[in-house]
Amino acid sequence: MTASSALRDASATETALGAPAPRVPEDVHAVMAAIGQRARAAARALALAPAQAKADGLMAAARAIRARAPAILAANEDDLAAARAAGMSAALQDRLVLTEGRLEAIAGAVEEIAALPDPVGQVTESWERPNGLRLERVRTPLGVIGVIYESRPNVTADAGSLCLKAGNAVILRGGSDSFNSSRAIHAAMVEGLVSAGLPADAIQLVPTRDRAAVGELLAGLGGTLDVIVPRGGKSLVARVQAEARVPVFAHLEGLVHIYVDKGADLGKALSIVKNAKLRRTSVCGAAETLLVDRADASRLLAPLVTMLLEAGCAVRGDADTQAADARVTPASEEDWRTEYLDAVISVKLVDGVGAAIDHIETYGSHHTDAILTEDAEVAERFLNEVDSAIVVHNASTQFADGGEFGFGGEIGIATGRMHARGPVGAEQLTSFKYRVRGTGQIRP
Amino acid sequence: MTASSALRDASATETALGAPAPRVPEDVHAVMAAIGQRARAAARALALAPAQAKADGLMAAARAIRARAPAILAANEDDLAAARAAGMSAALQDRLVLTEGRLEAIAGAVEEIAALPDPVGQVTESWERPNGLRLERVRTPLGVIGVIYESRPNVTADAGSLCLKAGNAVILRGGSDSFNSSRAIHAAMVEGLVSAGLPADAIQLVPTRDRAAVGELLAGLGGTLDVIVPRGGKSLVARVQAEARVPVFAHLEGLVHIYVDKGADLGKALSIVKNAKLRRTSVCGAAETLLVDRADASRLLAPLVTMLLEAGCAVRGDADTQAADARVTPASEEDWRTEYLDAVISVKLVDGVGAAIDHIETYGSHHTDAILTEDAEVAERFLNEVDSAIVVHNASTQFADGGEFGFGGEIGIATGRMHARGPVGAEQLTSFKYRVRGTGQIRP
Repeated sequence: MTASSALRDASATETALGAPAPRVPEDVHAVMAAIGQRARAAARALALAPAQAKADGLMAAARAIRARAPAILAANEDDLAAARAAGMSAALQDRLVLTEGRLEAIAGAVEEIAALPDPVGQVTESWERPNGLRLERVRTPLGVIGVIYESRPNVTADAGSLCLKAGNAVILRGGSDSFNSSRAIHAAMVEGLVSAGLPADAIQLVPTRDRAAVGELLAGLGGTLDVIVPRGGKSLVARVQAEARVPVFAHLEGLVHIYVDKGADLGKALSIVKNAKLRRTSVCGAAETLLVDRADASRLLAPLVTMLLEAGCAVRGDADTQAADARVTPASEEDWRTEYLDAVISVKLVDGVGAAIDHIETYGSHHTDAILTEDAEVAERFLNEVDSAIVVHNASTQFADGGEFGFGGEIGIATGRMHARGPVGAEQLTSFKYRVRGTGQIRP
Repeated sequence: MTASSALRDASATETALGAPAPRVPEDVHAVMAAIGQRARAAARALALAPAQAKADGLMAAARAIRARAPAILAANEDDLAAARAAGMSAALQDRLVLTEGRLEAIAGAVEEIAALPDPVGQVTESWERPNGLRLERVRTPLGVIGVIYESRPNVTADAGSLCLKAGNAVILRGGSDSFNSSRAIHAAMVEGLVSAGLPADAIQLVPTRDRAAVGELLAGLGGTLDVIVPRGGKSLVARVQAEARVPVFAHLEGLVHIYVDKGADLGKALSIVKNAKLRRTSVCGAAETLLVDRADASRLLAPLVTMLLEAGCAVRGDADTQAADARVTPASEEDWRTEYLDAVISVKLVDGVGAAIDHIETYGSHHTDAILTEDAEVAERFLNEVDSAIVVHNASTQFADGGEFGFGGEIGIATGRMHARGPVGAEQLTSFKYRVRGTGQIRP
């Protein structure tokens, strides 16, 4: 039994009615195989495309998005009407809706990616051997990238643009809810690419809502797909990680910690903890657990807890934290493992930086963790010993973002250790090769 | 159905008698799970181990290999006796046999790895943001590495040492034929590690010949294993690539090409082609196909073919090559896809560098490919357009080797595009993280 057939047996056609899942029609398999073949052919052309052609294609795509705004907004209205008819929640509808302002932001993001330095061909190392051989390590595209996402239609433009910038062909599989919106945005992207002489197949959108297409992507399209990037909620990412037969750049969750060490600057701590938890609670860099050094709790704990409560954040704490304010509710073991993505925080005293690191290594998700301290040695210990993609000293965890890192956008934040880690910008969407230049050398 | 159960159903206990494969005993599952747990615990300690401790541990391991030479050679004699009794071929016995000289080479290789720069903690990039945040990208270990190999017992020492150098815990699964030899070398390695205060579980050797252990490794030991490195023949690598549920650093084959362009220096070409094909025919960097520019064939082809034939190499060629020398036999379509690893070469005329690149992209294995030319522009085109881990201008393809690259050893040569590519030395056995240092910054 191959993974491919296992996935196809389990796959289902989405219906609003929750009807029993029919078997996968053979034509989805054929459609996806053809998409894979076209992507592979486009990838070879893209790998050799001049940086200027890629930048021109993206600039033209941004113009096409603006020019086609009425059509895109009309397509989005079709999606919204179907969503309302199916009883979609207001929160989910908000993720789906496009406005002129949002569309302008999408076009602007494509232009920003167009203006980034082109990573392909960058020489990252060069050296010479005693025998005179000159070696270089140079960035190359990864190849063909599959992106599986949910209802946000902007992903069609930004994931497509980032993959293209790094010389990759991309196969986009958007959510069913945003099917029409994504198709309209995709048409604009393709118009831009083609006007710059790039292959239309550089950015392909799966042309069916059939969920069997996801199974085909997870099986790798017969060896065509080099990597899959899931962008969406935990259940999507978990399914992709469990079933994919190709490498995945994914993060399941950002269970982000802030540890406040004894002697920390209280003013900084109040400002950073508030920002890290509450600036936006739904982002993966939002803090979820606050650890406070027991040795300085009498000075630090109550002001931090009171600040959070008064800013509208629910606080779940251990016994000491509950004693600090009557409004604190008890934290269960489950709380230390929970990414709230909401105005809720868990708070606990720990016995210094060692215990904080132990807690983070036990409960964390290797995404982003911060220490607030004025002790440089303690800070360095934390930065060295915490095994997370991003470790932060005296700043908000909400800087965990490709734009804030200066990467000019990101396709996601990876918490794995293979190939990509942290914010995945255009540079991490590349591979590399070695160029060896000789003058007739043979090996003795 | 999980991959793990699929593998367990298919697994078999090796017997010299070829008895029917029994079901996997539950205790192999338990043994492997426990090995995984211990490796994970050791990995955390190793990630924080000082560079000096790792270097000291490896130097002590090299001393222990020398001190235990009589025991290791006796264990090897047991393996050889069993191999002879089972009728193993002389060639395979040669891969298995240890001598005092080979053991000294193994100890020396461990010392060379000890002396390498420690990659862990190396800052590979650092920059500052307009808001004053200072960012660094720093190398970290990958975690837990599984190495599956065949009969060469030296892999026990060299793969173990390279993984350790990069701060990783490693689980070694050697071949059944070299079981006793590997155990004896492994005992010496552990003695060295422990004497330097490193965890004994940093390098573990699977203590059973049961093939079910391989299935457990391919299934990832319950999420414990970060990457698998298969070192061995094509069927081992193919099985690992097909069945592994964790990332694999592997190359299936080195279908290495040399293209000789019009105007090439004939003296250089004769010397390089001879070295690339015949210095050692069994290494993955050995040339398998020679492509000659039709525009200069009258000058280049016959001397190259004659040189190869007279050096004892069989030549299989297209019609033009057959016309150049009566001893040339016809090449079939299959020849262009064959890694001979023997004194055989396929030879073909092509219409210039573009056709050479097309041939390589159609038939190659993305390992190592070379161009011989005096035309700098043609050389650059070849180096840019050929999508192989290593591309070479005017030098032998047999330089495809971590030691020759200056990496101080390699665990293998990767032909994939994810994470590792080309010779995989200690540096490519690392991951990275970002350190962010602030002074109270919050995100607007």
